[in-house]
Amino acid sequence: MASLNAPVSVRSSAEIPLRPAASTRAGTTRTARLPIGEHRPSVPGGRFSPTAFVGEAVPFTVTAFREGHDRIGVHLRMTSPTGVTTLHRLSPLNDGFDRWRVSVAPLEQGTWTFRFETFADDFATWQHAADLKIAAGVDAALMREIGARLFEAAASERTRPAAEKRTLTTAAKALRDEAVSDDAALTIVRDPHLAAGFAARPVASLVSVHEEQTMLVERERAGVGAWYEFFPRSEGAERLPDGTVRSGTFRTAAKRLPGVAAMGFDVLYLPPIHPIGEVNRKGPNNTLTPSPGDPGSPWAIGSAAGGHDTVHPDLGTLEDFRAFVTAASEVGLEVALDLALQAAPDHPWVSAHPEWFTTLPDGSIAYAENPPKKYQDIYPINFDNDPEGIKAEVLRIVRHWIAQGVKIFRVDNPHTKPLQFWEWLIATVNAEHPDVVFLAEAFTRPAPLQALAQIGFQQSYSYFTWRNTKSELEEFFTWISDETADFMRPNLFVNTPDILTEYLQFGGRPAYKVRAALASTAGASYGVYAGYELYENVARPGSEENIDNEKYEYKFRDWDRAEQAGNSLAPYLRRLNEIRRAHPALRQLRGLHVQRTDDDAILAYVKHLDAALSPTGESDTIIVVANVDPHSARETTVHIDPTLWGLPRGVAYDVEDLLTGARWTWGEHNYVRLDAFVEPVHILAVKERS
Amino acid sequence: MASLNAPVSVRSSAEIPLRPAASTRAGTTRTARLPIGEHRPSVPGGRFSPTAFVGEAVPFTVTAFREGHDRIGVHLRMTSPTGVTTLHRLSPLNDGFDRWRVSVAPLEQGTWTFRFETFADDFATWQHAADLKIAAGVDAALMREIGARLFEAAASERTRPAAEKRTLTTAAKALRDEAVSDDAALTIVRDPHLAAGFAARPVASLVSVHEEQTMLVERERAGVGAWYEFFPRSEGAERLPDGTVRSGTFRTAAKRLPGVAAMGFDVLYLPPIHPIGEVNRKGPNNTLTPSPGDPGSPWAIGSAAGGHDTVHPDLGTLEDFRAFVTAASEVGLEVALDLALQAAPDHPWVSAHPEWFTTLPDGSIAYAENPPKKYQDIYPINFDNDPEGIKAEVLRIVRHWIAQGVKIFRVDNPHTKPLQFWEWLIATVNAEHPDVVFLAEAFTRPAPLQALAQIGFQQSYSYFTWRNTKSELEEFFTWISDETADFMRPNLFVNTPDILTEYLQFGGRPAYKVRAALASTAGASYGVYAGYELYENVARPGSEENIDNEKYEYKFRDWDRAEQAGNSLAPYLRRLNEIRRAHPALRQLRGLHVQRTDDDAILAYVKHLDAALSPTGESDTIIVVANVDPHSARETTVHIDPTLWGLPRGVAYDVEDLLTGARWTWGEHNYVRLDAFVEPVHILAVKERS
Repeated sequence: MASLNAPVSVRSSAEIPLRPAASTRAGTTRTARLPIGEHRPSVPGGRFSPTAFVGEAVPFTVTAFREGHDRIGVHLRMTSPTGVTTLHRLSPLNDGFDRWRVSVAPLEQGTWTFRFETFADDFATWQHAADLKIAAGVDAALMREIGARLFEAAASERTRPAAEKRTLTTAAKALRDEAVSDDAALTIVRDPHLAAGFAARPVASLVSVHEEQTMLVERERAGVGAWYEFFPRSEGAERLPDGTVRSGTFRTAAKRLPGVAAMGFDVLYLPPIHPIGEVNRKGPNNTLTPSPGDPGSPWAIGSAAGGHDTVHPDLGTLEDFRAFVTAASEVGLEVALDLALQAAPDHPWVSAHPEWFTTLPDGSIAYAENPPKKYQDIYPINFDNDPEGIKAEVLRIVRHWIAQGVKIFRVDNPHTKPLQFWEWLIATVNAEHPDVVFLAEAFTRPAPLQALAQIGFQQSYSYFTWRNTKSELEEFFTWISDETADFMRPNLFVNTPDILTEYLQFGGRPAYKVRAALASTAGASYGVYAGYELYENVARPGSEENIDNEKYEYKFRDWDRAEQAGNSLAPYLRRLNEIRRAHPALRQLRGLHVQRTDDDAILAYVKHLDAALSPTGESDTIIVVANVDPHSARETTVHIDPTLWGLPRGVAYDVEDLLTGARWTWGEHNYVRLDAFVEPVHILAVKERS
Repeated sequence: MASLNAPVSVRSSAEIPLRPAASTRAGTTRTARLPIGEHRPSVPGGRFSPTAFVGEAVPFTVTAFREGHDRIGVHLRMTSPTGVTTLHRLSPLNDGFDRWRVSVAPLEQGTWTFRFETFADDFATWQHAADLKIAAGVDAALMREIGARLFEAAASERTRPAAEKRTLTTAAKALRDEAVSDDAALTIVRDPHLAAGFAARPVASLVSVHEEQTMLVERERAGVGAWYEFFPRSEGAERLPDGTVRSGTFRTAAKRLPGVAAMGFDVLYLPPIHPIGEVNRKGPNNTLTPSPGDPGSPWAIGSAAGGHDTVHPDLGTLEDFRAFVTAASEVGLEVALDLALQAAPDHPWVSAHPEWFTTLPDGSIAYAENPPKKYQDIYPINFDNDPEGIKAEVLRIVRHWIAQGVKIFRVDNPHTKPLQFWEWLIATVNAEHPDVVFLAEAFTRPAPLQALAQIGFQQSYSYFTWRNTKSELEEFFTWISDETADFMRPNLFVNTPDILTEYLQFGGRPAYKVRAALASTAGASYGVYAGYELYENVARPGSEENIDNEKYEYKFRDWDRAEQAGNSLAPYLRRLNEIRRAHPALRQLRGLHVQRTDDDAILAYVKHLDAALSPTGESDTIIVVANVDPHSARETTVHIDPTLWGLPRGVAYDVEDLLTGARWTWGEHNYVRLDAFVEPVHILAVKERS
């Protein structure tokens, strides 16, 4: 509980009453009297603030120890952006590495400060020694007298509750009373009620205050959401009797919004909605020979009709777009736009600002290329000739779309633009609009991927699509939920217009189920590109993308007929999103624990959220068990550690499969059979036994 | 080579001519135009400087990348304490993690600064594209013109040698010459001579200068040395006809110095040489009932005869001690003293400064204890009552012994005193005497052990004694030579008066050989406590220390007779130390590479030092193969990676066993038989084939 009369700024697994802050003593050493080592949350290198989202359960850990054997305590003092300070007591992990931990969920958006405070825990030191020595008959009188003095000193503290003061005074008297036996004195030493008082209000000496740190807390959607991607031009597109196609528009696409919302998605992401270049336009399947009616790739942005600040005339007007955003909002969907900083050869920028591109010695402008391949429908931007001009223009564009109601941008290939530029852009935009979220589409090496997250991107596409085996997934889930979670929030898209993995191409319908179930439960954010629910799994031969890629043509899909015929994954996706909404543990990035199984394709993990950290005030525990071999039925033993949610080992507990409604009694070692052709995944909710 | 006319301050694997430093551009972002990520050497948490010793080959690594596909280069700019600046080019590791590396051995003691500089490598970018595109017939003329312009620009640089300018001008002309075929142009693109010029003097744009870092370089002995420990009172002690013992003295102990030196040791460490408390003195085997002649533990410091600034009267006078230090120095031994900050009950401090101890409510002073156990011969110091008084006194004592010629202190149990105190003491002493080395005897958990190294201790006792199996040793050697090497230098003592491990108790003579061979080759510093060479292996039952521990009594050992009888390990130790002196690779902490073998008790590792980093100017490569099961003869295949020292795989090379003189031809996969009862270890020198 937060301190009285203050707004509730955190949920905490160990909040204690606020006490005055000790002032940091100036010293000539970099080490404090009671030192600390490394801490988390933190960003490697120390240049950037760790991040969290509102309601995220963040484990704060720190290495803390002192010389010799005396006991210490560790506090975390946090101050919210509005200035509410809370104090939290860390527990030792007792792992041999002197690490301490407490989990806190911040509830206010903005920049928080936090610091660790270490102190000699005089009660704990006395209790430990008195317990051993009085029991062994060594120095009993001395230990009792030391305890009596400690209790008296505590009782004299102004901030201690009156009832506790009376208890302490009585206990001190008893410790000094020769009529009280040593055995009776030992019960005072071991009194859990007294110990609890000292835990909340420790008698602290040698208080050491450590360096203040910052943590940036962003809105919940920065970390949590189910995303859906569709091309608005396909939604409502119609093939006319003459064989040509009438493009879908924002008006026709808006008819699809209730269907997407009914599946339970939170964010609708649209590929670029701007005019598409006519020069060197690509035809179907990325060919260089388009027919007159071919719509071209939306990422080849710009034509005589306008550039990044313009809506493609085929889709309607800016007003139509605003109406689309409003309609989405009315069904609970937030619209995300694409921000692709590149230009078709006929983009207005090219003539107005040739300095924003690279002019070659022959006077031509350089195409995008990966030597010796060239991409002649796209000019990449050169950020170094006129960096200030480009910054001003991009900021203008982003502000323009924010003014239309857009607060989420999916940034195309940010790793091909200067990192410095993104740090500047995101900081500048977030200073004006802290709610704006940028998602980095950086399918690249770990160093640039992580750097983009560190410098400000709220979310990142991830390696999830290429992590398909049990061992790959175990490593990947541990990486995202622990190693990089202080600065990176992955969005686990199951597919994109560019990515149709072999696992999906050849895994049949079970593969589609497995991947959706994993993405929606292991990640706090995940995404689906339209067509996934129709099991679209035919690739352009030799490639990892759909044949007849929607990037270059219209798609005609009959969602309702597929669902009525039982040929749609939509009901499954709907159920997954319902489960996510009902279970706050699944809306957490941190706190995933891989569990051991005896089969090399049965993957298991637990996600747990303590009652103290949960928005519902109730503990939430989910066990996911998945057969990631989509061609098999497998049976094995799954080993679950129930101490993760506070149960002792060896105790039975009830689980309910949220997908099928089946109920079982589970324990530490559990028989599981998963037939990929029936239900490849269990999503089990642990039930509290009354 | 260092730049002309400057003193040689480094050895480097890739030094290049010094160029003017770019100035750091002020910017609003924390990210530079060409960003870097984490680097090494560094100390976790970033509060302390990494360390190295003079002549140590230090790998400098940094994560560096840029957006898109253009090539970058990375330089390390270092400035020595006397202001000599050198520039070093890093090579990409090409490991998928965008890491770059160069190894540099600093040769000047003191605080160095270093920083990384990243730049667009315009030649490499052009070369990569031109090679692919001209070969593919794409944009050949354009690529040739771009190259010609690049060469012309380079030729106009003031700092480029005249011969190179001429070559560049000629090449530019040829690239533009239509009579020169594209095939001929490709030979220019691929010309290694031109590429070498551009590697040493790159055409750099977007130069990004990163934060300046510091590295503390200490004298070689801070990192490298063979240590020997003896109790001076045992050396020359004599049992008199009446059964009493006449203590050895500095004069008698000095007679042992040539023997220790002849074994090849560098440092002689003496347990405390101060008066020993009479009150509560311990008897043989740590008993509480000493006889009148029992000498007591040297760590129970202080009596009416004096305290930490005094020589025990049994050992002689302060003048005798100085003579002993001089005699040691004359045979090449440096004397290390013990610094044990605790007091016997009759230490002069106790009456003069009771505030330096803890007074209990009953008026008594608190003994050292581990409840409920008490150590009644020792009072621990309380550093919090009068920290300034204690600091002044300890500084006085350390200065006193420095004045007697001591420059190495082995600090007893530093983890039981405040970390802050040590940071202050070492910084203060080193500011006056940079050559003074402190060795931390902190047999404790990893966090305090590493913290002591980070805050200043030049050396640390280590977990080596308890790492005996192959897998334990592989992990330990990797830990010390890589993970912690930026701040911690372990001293691999094989035994101490407190530690006689089960491995030694029950492993017989082969165990003594194995442990000495591993300690002396895997660590840059290692140590032996007297008696090891006599295979003293009888423990006090149930304990991990010698029976009749020398801490509490005199020892009488006949070194010469044991050796003459073939019952001494001294010749083996002598040979190990000879090998260490002849092979600079063994005097390095970093650069140990564990190698795979097919047997679970055959351990193998390579230590290598590049010619460019070696004091001899020649490459040095040692392969150690040890059978760590001292009860067996084993044969297996040892897999060696010859690329570690620059050989291609599959090539044969010659090795010589430095212990036996045997020679073999080795390759990647090598049959090895090691009979623990004959020679449990190969120490193989790789021979250069001419």
